[in-house]
Amino acid sequence: MTETMLAAVKTKPVSESIKVMKVPRPEPVAGEVLIRVRIASICGTDVHIYNWDEWAQARIKPPLIQGHEFAGEVVELGPNTSHIQVGDYVSAEGHIACGTCYQCRTGQSHICPNVRIIGVDRDGAFAEYVTVPEGNVIVNPSNLSLEMATIQDPFGNSVQTVFSADVPGNYVAIFGLGPTGLMSVALCRAVAAAKIFAIGHKNEYRMSLAKELGADLVLRSSSDLPAAIDEETDGRGLDHVLEMSGNRDAFNLGLKVLRAGGSMHVLGIYPAPFTVDVSSDIVTKGVSVYGIHGRHMYEDWFRMAGLLTSGRLNLKPLITHRFPFEDFLDAMEVMRSGNCGKVVLYME
Amino acid sequence: MTETMLAAVKTKPVSESIKVMKVPRPEPVAGEVLIRVRIASICGTDVHIYNWDEWAQARIKPPLIQGHEFAGEVVELGPNTSHIQVGDYVSAEGHIACGTCYQCRTGQSHICPNVRIIGVDRDGAFAEYVTVPEGNVIVNPSNLSLEMATIQDPFGNSVQTVFSADVPGNYVAIFGLGPTGLMSVALCRAVAAAKIFAIGHKNEYRMSLAKELGADLVLRSSSDLPAAIDEETDGRGLDHVLEMSGNRDAFNLGLKVLRAGGSMHVLGIYPAPFTVDVSSDIVTKGVSVYGIHGRHMYEDWFRMAGLLTSGRLNLKPLITHRFPFEDFLDAMEVMRSGNCGKVVLYME
Amino acid sequence: MTETMLAAVKTKPVSESIKVMKVPRPEPVAGEVLIRVRIASICGTDVHIYNWDEWAQARIKPPLIQGHEFAGEVVELGPNTSHIQVGDYVSAEGHIACGTCYQCRTGQSHICPNVRIIGVDRDGAFAEYVTVPEGNVIVNPSNLSLEMATIQDPFGNSVQTVFSADVPGNYVAIFGLGPTGLMSVALCRAVAAAKIFAIGHKNEYRMSLAKELGADLVLRSSSDLPAAIDEETDGRGLDHVLEMSGNRDAFNLGLKVLRAGGSMHVLGIYPAPFTVDVSSDIVTKGVSVYGIHGRHMYEDWFRMAGLLTSGRLNLKPLITHRFPFEDFLDAMEVMRSGNCGKVVLYME
Amino acid sequence: MTETMLAAVKTKPVSESIKVMKVPRPEPVAGEVLIRVRIASICGTDVHIYNWDEWAQARIKPPLIQGHEFAGEVVELGPNTSHIQVGDYVSAEGHIACGTCYQCRTGQSHICPNVRIIGVDRDGAFAEYVTVPEGNVIVNPSNLSLEMATIQDPFGNSVQTVFSADVPGNYVAIFGLGPTGLMSVALCRAVAAAKIFAIGHKNEYRMSLAKELGADLVLRSSSDLPAAIDEETDGRGLDHVLEMSGNRDAFNLGLKVLRAGGSMHVLGIYPAPFTVDVSSDIVTKGVSVYGIHGRHMYEDWFRMAGLLTSGRLNLKPLITHRFPFEDFLDAMEVMRSGNCGKVVLYME
Repeated sequence: MTETMLAAVKTKPVSESIKVMKVPRPEPVAGEVLIRVRIASICGTDVHIYNWDEWAQARIKPPLIQGHEFAGEVVELGPNTSHIQVGDYVSAEGHIACGTCYQCRTGQSHICPNVRIIGVDRDGAFAEYVTVPEGNVIVNPSNLSLEMATIQDPFGNSVQTVFSADVPGNYVAIFGLGPTGLMSVALCRAVAAAKIFAIGHKNEYRMSLAKELGADLVLRSSSDLPAAIDEETDGRGLDHVLEMSGNRDAFNLGLKVLRAGGSMHVLGIYPAPFTVDVSSDIVTKGVSVYGIHGRHMYEDWFRMAGLLTSGRLNLKPLITHRFPFEDFLDAMEVMRSGNCGKVVLYME
Repeated sequence: MTETMLAAVKTKPVSESIKVMKVPRPEPVAGEVLIRVRIASICGTDVHIYNWDEWAQARIKPPLIQGHEFAGEVVELGPNTSHIQVGDYVSAEGHIACGTCYQCRTGQSHICPNVRIIGVDRDGAFAEYVTVPEGNVIVNPSNLSLEMATIQDPFGNSVQTVFSADVPGNYVAIFGLGPTGLMSVALCRAVAAAKIFAIGHKNEYRMSLAKELGADLVLRSSSDLPAAIDEETDGRGLDHVLEMSGNRDAFNLGLKVLRAGGSMHVLGIYPAPFTVDVSSDIVTKGVSVYGIHGRHMYEDWFRMAGLLTSGRLNLKPLITHRFPFEDFLDAMEVMRSGNCGKVVLYME
Repeated sequence: MTETMLAAVKTKPVSESIKVMKVPRPEPVAGEVLIRVRIASICGTDVHIYNWDEWAQARIKPPLIQGHEFAGEVVELGPNTSHIQVGDYVSAEGHIACGTCYQCRTGQSHICPNVRIIGVDRDGAFAEYVTVPEGNVIVNPSNLSLEMATIQDPFGNSVQTVFSADVPGNYVAIFGLGPTGLMSVALCRAVAAAKIFAIGHKNEYRMSLAKELGADLVLRSSSDLPAAIDEETDGRGLDHVLEMSGNRDAFNLGLKVLRAGGSMHVLGIYPAPFTVDVSSDIVTKGVSVYGIHGRHMYEDWFRMAGLLTSGRLNLKPLITHRFPFEDFLDAMEVMRSGNCGKVVLYME
Repeated sequence: MTETMLAAVKTKPVSESIKVMKVPRPEPVAGEVLIRVRIASICGTDVHIYNWDEWAQARIKPPLIQGHEFAGEVVELGPNTSHIQVGDYVSAEGHIACGTCYQCRTGQSHICPNVRIIGVDRDGAFAEYVTVPEGNVIVNPSNLSLEMATIQDPFGNSVQTVFSADVPGNYVAIFGLGPTGLMSVALCRAVAAAKIFAIGHKNEYRMSLAKELGADLVLRSSSDLPAAIDEETDGRGLDHVLEMSGNRDAFNLGLKVLRAGGSMHVLGIYPAPFTVDVSSDIVTKGVSVYGIHGRHMYEDWFRMAGLLTSGRLNLKPLITHRFPFEDFLDAMEVMRSGNCGKVVLYME
């Protein structure tokens, strides 16, 4: 291995300002492994950092190598590792939990209050090499393609969300057709939802992708929606709404189109607090609302491996753009445009 | 039986205007039974009707006999009844579900969209006799006191709420110390919550009752609450909040004091929609919010019978006022004052 | 309507002795509807009665019209019906629950101890007309084919069994490849099991059908099975076993191939008690065993409608034989041979 | 600290042969802590080893210091520990899970197939000092008595068992009145079971203790039991059976007295496989059987702390015998006699 590597570095606390440059290769400390990255993909979070929005300003300390979605090969083991081997084909859970808090000690490390995130709170995978604590390393099935392997982190969000609901044979809507919403459409199809309503807004590109990935109906979030859903469900309403848009109107509309006793599963992040009709839309209808964050460590990863290798799930149409790593900034601009599914970067 | 009976009749669509008067005794139609009422109790809903608030104006069609909390004896069977017997000691589920909708066909009749409520949508139990569909009749354990029997309908709300959470050995707060909140305090104590926080506001009478019914700490809903809960839970926060106040600030404060992964169980009804910080308080904390309405038919009734006859639950201090039926208006004024637990009326 | 109808009548308490003959058309009593049968299918239970085995001798009182799997059209309403209409395209839940026992009052009417079964305890659907209590009538989706409609009752057994497990993305084996086992194979495929092991014994016909319906591996129940499953699951073992064979060796082998923490879901009926290694195979492995009977009324029926109309489930290959009703005895002989999937009878 | 310590050492692979003697004090290796033991208690497992039964012969490699139930104080930290402090008042989970298998990675480390047990597979707590991996160390609430602290490991078995059922307000029987059965009686009382049936056999001492700890009825496992339970539950039968006897007849009788839809929770270990009527007692009744092993790491420990400090649970009568550590062999003989609850050893 060389002593240096190519990396995309967020150099300064301002918008954009990412440079693909040579930096020192990291060394794995105790309990960590060093991974040679072969593919990485860009998350919406990376765009937030690129845009240097309020959240990014509060959280990110440049210089930083971003990136938490990737797949590669273990090339070196730090001291005190136990089960991962050099040569393993791996990805990683991006959330590094503390391991000692109440949540971590009770099977809820995905919501550890002390979490540190790869590519956000420490250097990440938009680089030729990345170090990861051994416990976060996922050994991929050998027959899993690089492109499926790299998108497991966001797909794990879909998996947690979809399986917090009871989708098979039931009516379900996905609000918000970004990459995670689109994966959820495909997943609901793979587990035999009775009818899948994909609810978009303005982005025709993604509404078209939703259709391709298995939505029965692709509709716009609007005041006509309740009547359309009422008709398509014989007056029953939706059993489940997966709210992935981060739009307050979608949240409230989602509650309206739920049947009494239905449930809402919320992965979306909203820019500000907003008004909810708790009495009419939640209490008297007996509705449940589930906040969803991260991926169950590591139940969701095992389930994902099973789903991805089952041959029942078709996520290929979701990978819409492929770039060599050197063209990182072009890739980021495609993400910014929104006219894409997942955008992947090849390191070699 | 006489042809007439004494009843408290809401005579006109204005505030108050309830008269205790002689009216014809009702006849049970097919599928119904006639019950001689021996005790009844006053629900907050009855106060809403008494006060003729907006909800009452929209829903209630006087003349009406109110009342849905009661116990008595079956005295006559209508045609086509099957298992209830004359002489049975009974109470009744107040929600008459349609029996044919999706919810009713799938074990969720407590949220039937076509529900009709005894004492709200048809004549009720503030009278010497009441008719009830046989399916809604509950045969009480013979050793259940009249006072425990009459409060089962509201206690069933507590039962549904408390058992939608996982209370034993965990930290739980009850916001709102009306009768249902107070019953929930006693129930959480009966199932060995680790620590019970009863959160009131201004009503000293009920805060004192909460202590008597088993709260470990009785606190006021205020900005000091998070620090107090943090200290009393060793920094963990609450596992569950039971929101029974119907106060928007309590709802939002309840979310703040939940630990990541905790859940909120909402029985309270809010006068209007209000602002919620969905992202910070629900999504990223992985919190669940459950809307609770009515009582599971009839799982919650069977569980209630088991709890009430187990000797483990002490609800007696909750019955603070007893009136003969003739003094109905005095009883209603006590309810209006709020300086009471449950107020019961004896018919004989 | 004519006053008589064609029916297959079990005439005497001996083996075989079923005659297709003219009998009086039944009249719906209060709460019942009369259905003109258009298609029916033969259940294993019908073969037990045909063979007049021990169970049949203890339960059946000839003369009896058998048959509980069917679809048809409502042609007359008895008194006191409420929501079913003449002309409705319907099937029926075969278990008539009492409605008043603990199980019926708590959402468990599928295991009502007082159940009476259509075509077992009262006349059934191997006839041109059948009467059914209104509450048991299922209105079929209008686009559901007759052949899918008639097999809903047994498919409901599969639905209850499969959804008592957590199949998507997990490893599952189905032991026993009779019609219900075969439907379960198809259903596990429809909900994206990671890998489906169909375990047969001697019947090549059905092992071949299992492959066609979506099994990943079709294996024989034998001492080689644990090694094969170990290899195919990377040493993890099975997450779930669906035991539908009614064979004691399959039951015990199924427990052996479960991983620690896995679960077994048992629909099979065994001719006699047998030896189980409770300590090693259940207790110390932390395994759960679920007895499955009937179909949840009516959650499983709604889910079934959703699955059958979703386009995700392919049960067509399961219908292997079609007969006109007059050839009832030929159809029964095919069932007896075991070289078949589902055998259906057309009434017209 | 001295370089040696007093310990009870199983010296040879034969029955008895335990000596209280001076041995070298252990040193904590990386990731471990050293604990000064202040109290320990004797488990049935320790009696198995003392008796040198078949299980012990296959598993135990003398010389060994037994003992996995204890409480004490952390006196030294090995390298690479993180959150435990010298001076912490602690107990420990006795199962040391591998951390890397499927079960450990998915929240099921209590059934890790690679588990090593303190005092069984490595030296334990019948000594003045014991080393334990930091992850297994439980920091006790400061107000938890030594006697309650030392019995947490077996009480955790009760906690897992009782909370795998839905006890509050329901009918429950505990078969087997050894210490874990007795703790389960007390726990069922603490969470308001409707009626608690404690089912013993011959041991009058423990049947009397069961009454003291909260059983409503103490009965003998016999052919009269079904009639007694039928009467006491108004013909419903039991909702849950906790099988803690390890007796095959109790297991089968327990299934008989369950209502349709009830469940059995099995912690008992049986000396050999035995005959079960799977069809009648599990399948057609829709019964579930749960194998229970160990304690959920560490959900059950947190719940235990909440229960033990809630003031709702009374386990004090269970501690029937107290010995100074030097009298270890006397304590062991009391355990062997069976005329005891928990037997504790004080180290100072």
